[in-house]
Amino acid sequence: MAGSVFGDIFRVTTWGESHGPALGCVIDGCPAGLELSEDDIQPYMDRRKPGTSALTTQRSEADKIEILSGVFEGRTTGTPISLMIRNTSQHSTDYDELKDVYRPGHADYTFDAKYGFRDHRGGGRSSGRETAARVAAGAVAMKLLSKLDISIDAYTASIGIIKAEHNKELMDRLSNPVCMPDDHAAKEVLRFMEECRAAKDSAGGTAECVIKGVPAGLGEPVFDKLDALLGHAMFSIGAVKAVEIGDGISVTSRYGSENNDAMHMEDGRVVFDSNHAGGILGGISNGNDIFMRVHFKPTPSIFSTQNTVNKKGENVELAIKGRHDPVIVPRAIVVVECMSALVITDLLLKNMSSRLDHILKIYG
Amino acid sequence: MAGSVFGDIFRVTTWGESHGPALGCVIDGCPAGLELSEDDIQPYMDRRKPGTSALTTQRSEADKIEILSGVFEGRTTGTPISLMIRNTSQHSTDYDELKDVYRPGHADYTFDAKYGFRDHRGGGRSSGRETAARVAAGAVAMKLLSKLDISIDAYTASIGIIKAEHNKELMDRLSNPVCMPDDHAAKEVLRFMEECRAAKDSAGGTAECVIKGVPAGLGEPVFDKLDALLGHAMFSIGAVKAVEIGDGISVTSRYGSENNDAMHMEDGRVVFDSNHAGGILGGISNGNDIFMRVHFKPTPSIFSTQNTVNKKGENVELAIKGRHDPVIVPRAIVVVECMSALVITDLLLKNMSSRLDHILKIYG
Amino acid sequence: MAGSVFGDIFRVTTWGESHGPALGCVIDGCPAGLELSEDDIQPYMDRRKPGTSALTTQRSEADKIEILSGVFEGRTTGTPISLMIRNTSQHSTDYDELKDVYRPGHADYTFDAKYGFRDHRGGGRSSGRETAARVAAGAVAMKLLSKLDISIDAYTASIGIIKAEHNKELMDRLSNPVCMPDDHAAKEVLRFMEECRAAKDSAGGTAECVIKGVPAGLGEPVFDKLDALLGHAMFSIGAVKAVEIGDGISVTSRYGSENNDAMHMEDGRVVFDSNHAGGILGGISNGNDIFMRVHFKPTPSIFSTQNTVNKKGENVELAIKGRHDPVIVPRAIVVVECMSALVITDLLLKNMSSRLDHILKIYG
Amino acid sequence: MAGSVFGDIFRVTTWGESHGPALGCVIDGCPAGLELSEDDIQPYMDRRKPGTSALTTQRSEADKIEILSGVFEGRTTGTPISLMIRNTSQHSTDYDELKDVYRPGHADYTFDAKYGFRDHRGGGRSSGRETAARVAAGAVAMKLLSKLDISIDAYTASIGIIKAEHNKELMDRLSNPVCMPDDHAAKEVLRFMEECRAAKDSAGGTAECVIKGVPAGLGEPVFDKLDALLGHAMFSIGAVKAVEIGDGISVTSRYGSENNDAMHMEDGRVVFDSNHAGGILGGISNGNDIFMRVHFKPTPSIFSTQNTVNKKGENVELAIKGRHDPVIVPRAIVVVECMSALVITDLLLKNMSSRLDHILKIYG
Repeated sequence: MAGSVFGDIFRVTTWGESHGPALGCVIDGCPAGLELSEDDIQPYMDRRKPGTSALTTQRSEADKIEILSGVFEGRTTGTPISLMIRNTSQHSTDYDELKDVYRPGHADYTFDAKYGFRDHRGGGRSSGRETAARVAAGAVAMKLLSKLDISIDAYTASIGIIKAEHNKELMDRLSNPVCMPDDHAAKEVLRFMEECRAAKDSAGGTAECVIKGVPAGLGEPVFDKLDALLGHAMFSIGAVKAVEIGDGISVTSRYGSENNDAMHMEDGRVVFDSNHAGGILGGISNGNDIFMRVHFKPTPSIFSTQNTVNKKGENVELAIKGRHDPVIVPRAIVVVECMSALVITDLLLKNMSSRLDHILKIYG
Repeated sequence: MAGSVFGDIFRVTTWGESHGPALGCVIDGCPAGLELSEDDIQPYMDRRKPGTSALTTQRSEADKIEILSGVFEGRTTGTPISLMIRNTSQHSTDYDELKDVYRPGHADYTFDAKYGFRDHRGGGRSSGRETAARVAAGAVAMKLLSKLDISIDAYTASIGIIKAEHNKELMDRLSNPVCMPDDHAAKEVLRFMEECRAAKDSAGGTAECVIKGVPAGLGEPVFDKLDALLGHAMFSIGAVKAVEIGDGISVTSRYGSENNDAMHMEDGRVVFDSNHAGGILGGISNGNDIFMRVHFKPTPSIFSTQNTVNKKGENVELAIKGRHDPVIVPRAIVVVECMSALVITDLLLKNMSSRLDHILKIYG
Repeated sequence: MAGSVFGDIFRVTTWGESHGPALGCVIDGCPAGLELSEDDIQPYMDRRKPGTSALTTQRSEADKIEILSGVFEGRTTGTPISLMIRNTSQHSTDYDELKDVYRPGHADYTFDAKYGFRDHRGGGRSSGRETAARVAAGAVAMKLLSKLDISIDAYTASIGIIKAEHNKELMDRLSNPVCMPDDHAAKEVLRFMEECRAAKDSAGGTAECVIKGVPAGLGEPVFDKLDALLGHAMFSIGAVKAVEIGDGISVTSRYGSENNDAMHMEDGRVVFDSNHAGGILGGISNGNDIFMRVHFKPTPSIFSTQNTVNKKGENVELAIKGRHDPVIVPRAIVVVECMSALVITDLLLKNMSSRLDHILKIYG
Repeated sequence: MAGSVFGDIFRVTTWGESHGPALGCVIDGCPAGLELSEDDIQPYMDRRKPGTSALTTQRSEADKIEILSGVFEGRTTGTPISLMIRNTSQHSTDYDELKDVYRPGHADYTFDAKYGFRDHRGGGRSSGRETAARVAAGAVAMKLLSKLDISIDAYTASIGIIKAEHNKELMDRLSNPVCMPDDHAAKEVLRFMEECRAAKDSAGGTAECVIKGVPAGLGEPVFDKLDALLGHAMFSIGAVKAVEIGDGISVTSRYGSENNDAMHMEDGRVVFDSNHAGGILGGISNGNDIFMRVHFKPTPSIFSTQNTVNKKGENVELAIKGRHDPVIVPRAIVVVECMSALVITDLLLKNMSSRLDHILKIYG
């Protein structure tokens, strides 16, 4: 209701502000019996955490995950899993002068309009730091999905006008800090980022995400289509301005005969001749790879001078200080994956009760 | 959970199949005291109903709305509003040969994968006809929004490669059957549709939607951002493959300094110098017009021969018969508006309890 | 949210007023593949319907059920099941003089306080007639439960001070109109009802309900305990003023050593030596019979003169006219069963995703 | 869904086990602008915490509350409030021998049946210690309710067969450790508790709760009646076996003419001549005091020898060790109050959107 809860069965509630003592989440509805420890979650935290390259804010956070409940002798108990990350590197005074000023492109003005006031330190709840809690929850979902051989991989497809060329063959994403499956393009991006920084400016970009191994049948007809929930999840990530499923926008200028994915049988299984649909038909997975493209705006925090207003209703000039990512996409990659994992996991659990024969398998 | 419920406070449940006796919806949570009659809803039904032009299926349905509950002496009572539309023109035998065949681009295969079998007549629950119930619910939301001077207008921005030119000055959308604010382009579209029909093919296109009058402050931080819920709503419409908010994909290649919307004061109000954000910052409305672009794939029902498989696991050829829209966008315009209305209305009601001073206004 | 939705997975939305054109419900989340027809539901409607004995209102309604969606070729499709009952015997003018008067013991005053006005005809949405839609939904749940050999039987345990003696051996409840498993007591009740009627008065009573065959493990810890949801369901039935689980109130004066149910093994199964707990431990079913007692107040509609006020704020005297049950319990028996069925069914479906091994059984 | 979430708008998620590192809760949906600090919550924690008298377990916990998010400069921000209590006095080895044994009257067997295994230390999630997190959440609700002059007071009405006499004039509940508004009865209870302890046994009892100042109009018709939600909340407290609203069970043997609460006008307000209904009509508050009686079973943890079974399926004898309350009621008093506060608060927020005139007051 108030927006910090996601999912119906695998239900995640996140909490925490950028400059509060900690952030975290509670997962209610994780099935019992899943092996789980901090070691399953920490690698995801590490991929998201700041300070790892020239592309990210220099805020230095260990982002160490603590499991506070829901796991006993190495396995989930079926009761709520509480995860916490302590904040350790808040420089709240960096934000003192922003207390009454509305940064362009940020949620400062809208939070004040909604709540009457706001925690201005580092953006408070609207900070990208909030995604740390989502990543923690998503890592648990990923562990569950791995039991069913479902994998989710995202990568940077473009930054500014620089596009990755070879994104089909996913390279080790840790080999370059841009998370691009194309080292040549990645180098260009690093050069471009230097230019942005020199110009006190920032850039946008695009992530792509491939989900493999999802059985046919996930997604609920009508309002909770798989693509509707993925769209919801992606647009819930700050700075996302567009989402495409499968071939996305390009389908609008195609003929139906070009765009339909024909089917044939192969080894007793239905095989699609193409995957324009991105693995989803009528809102339900068809067994093909699910493919999604997620578009991010440039980081709104820029160091050049901008015109804006303050809480008193005065026109003011603002030059933002502090520690900010010049582009958000590389750090958002793991967030895209983890939000996708939450969607798939919840639909997987929902789909269990969709058929009488499923029910008889459990209780019959 | 099972996908036919939308909204948290203004909660809509839809039901009905293409070839069943009727379709409808129940709205639980509509505030008491709103004047409402069938006359408020029927015009929206008429805009969506088939058979009105060469662009739409020739299935002839009156789509007459009946209010079965929740309205007394011309006003809503605060209890559930049940709305029903009788089906009258089912030609179910048209679909007999589809009983065991999976139409490419349709949900036939995925429904079978999910449920083990399906109502094959006219697509059953996966039919576009299901949107009639959404439009009925949306019309009630529209009536409520009109009390707060909030308006929602969508139109066809492109069909195939034909784009409307003058879409800023919204023309009377009923003046051409394409719902394009550009009569010249509309004529080209009609010509193009003839070509498609002759080629036994279909086309896709793009809708745009403008929401005016939304007060700043709607939308919930983190997961239930206004854009996340609009994205959810739009992707829940069959055939939608991409959604853009504000300037959408184009922002990915901009600099932050170009993309941020600067602010200044004007007559004591905050005014944005531009609206790249499309009226939403940090997932919360900023008082600007909300702008959205919704991309539809070509109608998958085409009359040319396609390769596919049947339920028995055999390769078969299929040439679809029946009555189908050669392009879905013009009829989807009112669906885009109505789904937007459901999102805005629900967030408007949710936002009422966001502040202690609101609460004291009601109970203090 | 607004109160006409029940259940999370097997989610029922009811609608309709006593004197509107119809009442009904929509079930979203019924598993696919369950054989279902009107014949499965109508017997439950018939047990609840008015006019069947001297104990019930003489309003004569056929309460004929119509399935409008969600069933195809005799089986549920997994999509919403819409059920409707037409009202046929509204005597709305009976209620004209109640338009502005608040009947004692009724919701007239509170509906006006909440909504500002109300549909006064027959109590509108607050009428006991609303339970017809619950019974329809519950009958579908009953059909599902029967596949797992779960049975739910309620009966009248007392009316006024007359208690049924032999309630352990459930007699055919249709053999007497009181639904008492004790013909002698039933006859006394009929005599007592004559006295009530002569005195222009009404009576209360108690229902008991036994649920057999529920597997151990249903119910969610903490807030959604099985007993919490049964309590919720029972108190949602108008006129219920107390609910007891197992031995109920009597346990408050016992010692722990008396009240604990000891266990031993029998044929490889855990067997409880007693069932003081009523089949529920820690909010979760233990495999024993679930037992519940539900207490109803006397029908508030009485024909003797009462002091009350009207909408204008005047003191007035009121002698209710119309057609009313002199005691509500016998007709509420099937409502108790059906609400219980909704609770058990929803928990059964929820519990499917509680364990990793369940998940592997479906998808592994 | 999985049971650790309560409320729709003021939504509380609790987490934590008896012997884990901590317990806590997250409140999503608390309105912005409410003054709040640990000092508002700690007094409620102190009333519930163990070790304060001979009546409670000797486990010594400070139950110190920490606010981790959602409060900025002394006021709630509208975003999630995360509250945590560290466990400090776990004696987990006390429970080693219970690892595979099912304690009668406890959830050991049912947790194993549900999840396949369980955290046996101190009952894990099924421990009464879990209520600490509810009390923390309830204290925040209480602070909100105090702004509207709504008060909630519970007290011990009986322990075993000893009943408090003067419970109308609520005495300072801290003056005796039994929380009885009758010092004479309280002394008898203390004597009785000594007997229980000597007999290695335990006792049950009854709490009563009065809620004052609730405006008429709260509660949702049909399923989410105010009494239904109170019933749900009370039965969600471990050991509760019966709940009565208003005059409760006694109404079953009354005539309607005795039980109806007549109304008259007084100083322009509707006044009820009596309050048999306990402040609720048709599931909606009528402005009268809300009255409720909650019945608890004897503590199942007793030190005398009991027959039971173990996980291996063997009959065993069990004499429980450890630290346990000989009666649960005195410590449950604050839990009854806090759960009531959650119900009232959520309904208060829900009711805001029930009428168009409310909406126009906020946005018009």
